[in-house]
Amino acid sequence: MYVRSTAAVAGPKEGRGPLGKYYDHVYDDNIAGEKTFEKAERAMMKDAALRAIQKAGLTANDIDFFLAGDLLNQVTVANFTALKVGVPFLGLYGACSTSAESLALGSVLVDSGAARHVVIATSSHNDAAERQYRYPTEYGYQRRPYAQWTVTGSGAAVLSAETGNVKVTGFTAGRVHDAGVKEPYNLGAAMAPAAADTIITHLNDFELTPGDYDLILTGDLGKFGTEMLFQQLSTGSGVDISKQHRDCGLMIYDRKEDVHAGGSGCASSALVVFGYVIEALREGELKRVLLVATGALHSPTTFQQGENIPSIAHAVILEREE
Amino acid sequence: MYVRSTAAVAGPKEGRGPLGKYYDHVYDDNIAGEKTFEKAERAMMKDAALRAIQKAGLTANDIDFFLAGDLLNQVTVANFTALKVGVPFLGLYGACSTSAESLALGSVLVDSGAARHVVIATSSHNDAAERQYRYPTEYGYQRRPYAQWTVTGSGAAVLSAETGNVKVTGFTAGRVHDAGVKEPYNLGAAMAPAAADTIITHLNDFELTPGDYDLILTGDLGKFGTEMLFQQLSTGSGVDISKQHRDCGLMIYDRKEDVHAGGSGCASSALVVFGYVIEALREGELKRVLLVATGALHSPTTFQQGENIPSIAHAVILEREE
Repeated sequence: MYVRSTAAVAGPKEGRGPLGKYYDHVYDDNIAGEKTFEKAERAMMKDAALRAIQKAGLTANDIDFFLAGDLLNQVTVANFTALKVGVPFLGLYGACSTSAESLALGSVLVDSGAARHVVIATSSHNDAAERQYRYPTEYGYQRRPYAQWTVTGSGAAVLSAETGNVKVTGFTAGRVHDAGVKEPYNLGAAMAPAAADTIITHLNDFELTPGDYDLILTGDLGKFGTEMLFQQLSTGSGVDISKQHRDCGLMIYDRKEDVHAGGSGCASSALVVFGYVIEALREGELKRVLLVATGALHSPTTFQQGENIPSIAHAVILEREE
Repeated sequence: MYVRSTAAVAGPKEGRGPLGKYYDHVYDDNIAGEKTFEKAERAMMKDAALRAIQKAGLTANDIDFFLAGDLLNQVTVANFTALKVGVPFLGLYGACSTSAESLALGSVLVDSGAARHVVIATSSHNDAAERQYRYPTEYGYQRRPYAQWTVTGSGAAVLSAETGNVKVTGFTAGRVHDAGVKEPYNLGAAMAPAAADTIITHLNDFELTPGDYDLILTGDLGKFGTEMLFQQLSTGSGVDISKQHRDCGLMIYDRKEDVHAGGSGCASSALVVFGYVIEALREGELKRVLLVATGALHSPTTFQQGENIPSIAHAVILEREE
């Protein structure tokens, strides 16, 4: 089925980045006119979802399902946004892999005939995520070189049975992995094995090679996670994706922004895919893209109880129809 | 598609209840041999999922997707269980409506041909949920008459393209509602309007009346929520479901257990449906059931920030094939 429209809205730090011109709206600050960061994130998801619906030439009444997820406890950004969007809602949780999960499940709903139009959305917010998972940003703790920066923003899309020239043509849902990582700043290392496994499984299942893609896009492995992915792919199965690969977390920020190993969060892949990639496919700049959205599946409770950080990666094929 | 097998495992308080004989396993205590309540909940979900797979005559290798969700932050029960089950995983969050959400999305995956076999699972745990949402149970705060008791246990099912005589024949995904309730002990009142809306929408969309069902089963409205549902249905649209209706939260516990307005939690509908209802359909005791699983979509953060408790209800038709 077709990706009929997309929308991406971003915080100011993201808006200053190399992909800034692709976003539909860049907020002046991270609070977006709201009273809390959590409410600001909701305002962003609502903004992205309503823009996607409008750009599709539709209204909320035309939409059969809203599929959405985010990082906050009990997925409240998506829940509260669904109240405002007013469309039958199915909540998802895949941490930062939710963009790919929503593309996959949304496509199946349309393909099966259960829906004509589905809206999908994901979001993250630096200040809301930091204070839930780690410390408030004002605390100013020292960040390690492999720490990543949670992206502030939201991406949304309308998937439809008709109209468009960009399609979701397949997906590979990931298995959960445990790389033995316990430190919630070192998520690239936690997620790299999940990405490697999903990429290998995907290429085998669909009988493809990395060269069949213009672009293989991981969600938020960051600098060190990307190095680990390359190493694990080449050691494990001799697969080299270095020519096709880019990591969304490394595409979002300007080098002068102090984000250490790169961006992360549900909005990392959402901004890059729903802001830039679908547009590039639509324009013919890209022909076939594999999105491999990665997610760290821990919680502050599991961390405090001394447990490892499990992770997952879901792959979705995005293709231009000639 | 068919509900090929089901399994339900329960805590001791639940095991003593009227449906105790339908559960596959009743634990001697709430800790289930683990070190934390959170880990005990995972042990229960894993137990339910593996029993369902085994009862289907399958192994994990036969399963295409595992769809699961729970109440704990970042859906970690499902995430960590997916690591053990080892099947491609799609995480869901619909609070206590997750049983119906997983039945709906699992069925669509099988119907569309994307999967041959899907395992679905949901769980909740009284001590883990209480200390996350409210206070540790040891604190012994005074419970109000409308407070409900989070059910300890897990239910799972295998949905398959073939084999069985019980089918999922349709579903109605709910819209999110805000009834203006702020108090996290008064969830029946928060969820009743969502249940009423989904039931009316469902009956209209499918051109059915309550009499077309043997049983209309809400997930966890409890005593007062059920009264509100009846009132809202009759005032709003003159629909009377009192002859067909039962609430899972009122079916689980023996009267002498001190659960106030009834049970709640993801395991409320899961134990009743995957323990008792599917079995009753299989045996011909019931012919056509509407499961209306209800969910309160707040978090401790939204409560502390003074916000209302939004809610949702998803309806799924379960039918015996003659």
